[in-house]
Amino acid sequence: MNHAKIRELFPIVNQKVNNHSLVYLDNAATTQKPRQVIQTLKRFYEWENANVHRGVHTLGTRATDAYEGARMKVARFINAASEQEIIFTRGTTAAINLVASGYAKAICKEGDEIVITLMEHHSNLIPWQQAAKATGAILKYIPLQQDGSVSLEDVEKTITARTKIVSVSHISNVLGMINPIKQITKIAHKHGAVILVDGAQSAPHIKIDMQELDCDFYAFSGHKMCGPTGIGVLYGKKKIIQQMEPVEFGGEMIEHVDLWGTTWREVPWKFEGGTPIIAGAIGLGAAIDFLEHIGREEIERHDRQLTRYAMERMAEIDDLAVYGPKNDRVGLITFNLGNIHPHDVATFLDSFGIAVRAGHHCCQPLMSWLGAHATTRASFYLYNTEDEVDKFITVLLAARKYFM
Amino acid sequence: MNHAKIRELFPIVNQKVNNHSLVYLDNAATTQKPRQVIQTLKRFYEWENANVHRGVHTLGTRATDAYEGARMKVARFINAASEQEIIFTRGTTAAINLVASGYAKAICKEGDEIVITLMEHHSNLIPWQQAAKATGAILKYIPLQQDGSVSLEDVEKTITARTKIVSVSHISNVLGMINPIKQITKIAHKHGAVILVDGAQSAPHIKIDMQELDCDFYAFSGHKMCGPTGIGVLYGKKKIIQQMEPVEFGGEMIEHVDLWGTTWREVPWKFEGGTPIIAGAIGLGAAIDFLEHIGREEIERHDRQLTRYAMERMAEIDDLAVYGPKNDRVGLITFNLGNIHPHDVATFLDSFGIAVRAGHHCCQPLMSWLGAHATTRASFYLYNTEDEVDKFITVLLAARKYFM
Repeated sequence: MNHAKIRELFPIVNQKVNNHSLVYLDNAATTQKPRQVIQTLKRFYEWENANVHRGVHTLGTRATDAYEGARMKVARFINAASEQEIIFTRGTTAAINLVASGYAKAICKEGDEIVITLMEHHSNLIPWQQAAKATGAILKYIPLQQDGSVSLEDVEKTITARTKIVSVSHISNVLGMINPIKQITKIAHKHGAVILVDGAQSAPHIKIDMQELDCDFYAFSGHKMCGPTGIGVLYGKKKIIQQMEPVEFGGEMIEHVDLWGTTWREVPWKFEGGTPIIAGAIGLGAAIDFLEHIGREEIERHDRQLTRYAMERMAEIDDLAVYGPKNDRVGLITFNLGNIHPHDVATFLDSFGIAVRAGHHCCQPLMSWLGAHATTRASFYLYNTEDEVDKFITVLLAARKYFM
Repeated sequence: MNHAKIRELFPIVNQKVNNHSLVYLDNAATTQKPRQVIQTLKRFYEWENANVHRGVHTLGTRATDAYEGARMKVARFINAASEQEIIFTRGTTAAINLVASGYAKAICKEGDEIVITLMEHHSNLIPWQQAAKATGAILKYIPLQQDGSVSLEDVEKTITARTKIVSVSHISNVLGMINPIKQITKIAHKHGAVILVDGAQSAPHIKIDMQELDCDFYAFSGHKMCGPTGIGVLYGKKKIIQQMEPVEFGGEMIEHVDLWGTTWREVPWKFEGGTPIIAGAIGLGAAIDFLEHIGREEIERHDRQLTRYAMERMAEIDDLAVYGPKNDRVGLITFNLGNIHPHDVATFLDSFGIAVRAGHHCCQPLMSWLGAHATTRASFYLYNTEDEVDKFITVLLAARKYFM
């Protein structure tokens, strides 16, 4: 892909911050938006805005077509069997919570097991703690290998006939490697458990195919893949979400309401009570169009290659410890530089226009396991360049000199 | 206010639909957005976009300031005691559900009472049906007077010492009148109950003051008051929301997480798990700036006056039945024209560029009470004019001639 042209499409990556060209390496937290997405939001509000589904007027029909059209784009993007398997949510967190509240609480009994890994983000951990607490189910953690990865042997040992739900991130937001979802899914299914995949860090970077992965639920966010904030997706196999209870109740989701009871509409609409996140979904559709136009293989190739390049360059820096496996990383590198506090590293980088994240990355249990109170994270996306990585390395070297 | 100038700010109200100038009278479903709001979203995504709270870089600080600044604007807009009383949600529906799940389910026991009225929108009805079902509480309905209004005598009779929660709309989305919230609140408090007000139809039109109303919770949506879709507000008195449990769990909302338990951050952040609806909140802040710039007394005056004018003109039409009280209406009129099906009325109006809504308006129990399967609704906002009302009347007369 023509990198200069791609960068032109992102107004923000060309701005100056603290008198330096911005080097935005905080993509695992949120990505920047191309003009196409911003323009789609603008056009929707200027020319098509109306409430959806219930309208019998022209604007309402236009808005409904745009909103439901976005659902079809998402279905195609992840190769779902039907657009009825696509539930729009506020984001990954809301998607996982919907399954934990609407599904896990209904099917788990005392002594049943919910299995996650030690590397999970809080959003794929606390909902399960809560579901376990509410049902008497036992929360079990798949342990990590020394490099932070998950071994299939440990997966086999942890998942049992009592396991009802397994929930695993596709790509860890701290360790950066791809988990073997297809194999974990097979093991879960062998024991009759359903599996949810937290795709917040994978959907932006790698091709995800529901037919190939065969997972039961898949959750991801728009804002981490060039889309707007406040929109995300829960994919769920139709048969399973048909049994799942809604957890939010309001207009749009009902078949019939009387004073004492209500019947629900069919999936996915029974999960979308109230006025939907209309512009958000349409903006996510535009982001998908954009990513597909660039080419998803091309994006994965670029993000892998840039991460590899950054890993190589970081290996040149003394006292720099990288967390997680050395290879097969996509998009992010978490590290510490000697015993300089990660916030100092990040603040130093920021004074040169380089945006990275520092802290526990919403992974306190993983941080404990790593023996680090906090870390610094650099994360990459399609508009980042080797030149930006070089700047990052130069300033890291300067930070080392300054602090150590 | 200079009406021509206001209309210029809304790109959509000047467009042609079906070869006629659009007359957008579906504002109770969603309102159009002024250039200021669209521009704010665009500017945010082009120049300030980053994730909030956790960032130690310049963009992250800018985004956090903008997001938390929006919270302060909302607090001022409704005269809350503190911005910590402002919880951002996906919309009114999500806000009411949060209270029904996080508060009602915790405090209601078998035999306790939840009190609502017969006029409630499904979003202020089904959550309470569900909370009652989950806790064994009894759902009680305040009956309606012949004109659809609520009498304080009936409120006194319905609320008892067993009542834990009262939930009432400020303005009915079908009947259009303002409910006496201040007095209902006093009665609820006298019995030790808390009160939630569904402000979806009031926040856009009338001044709302939490200190004056003294209600415990207040819910409203951005998209019905010139803001983006997918953002809303739950106001809650600090003392009460401090006791309320979060219902969604994820990043951002926690104090500390270990393998087996989690402690929450303080209010309002404990209710905002995951990446917040950043741009949505900032867009809502821009909508508030816009409404305050026009002047809220001015908006109320205009919306009341236009509704009165439409009521007068509709009285000229034979066989036209208006639902709800004749006076003291703000913003909307629901009606039937002879026995022409409301969908036919709406479709006929649409063919002349006039957008109204037809159906049960997410109020099936109220529809049963009214003895109408469906109705047509015209709803007004600050950009609508008497000239548009005249067009609407002319086409209604033509519809009568065509169908009857």
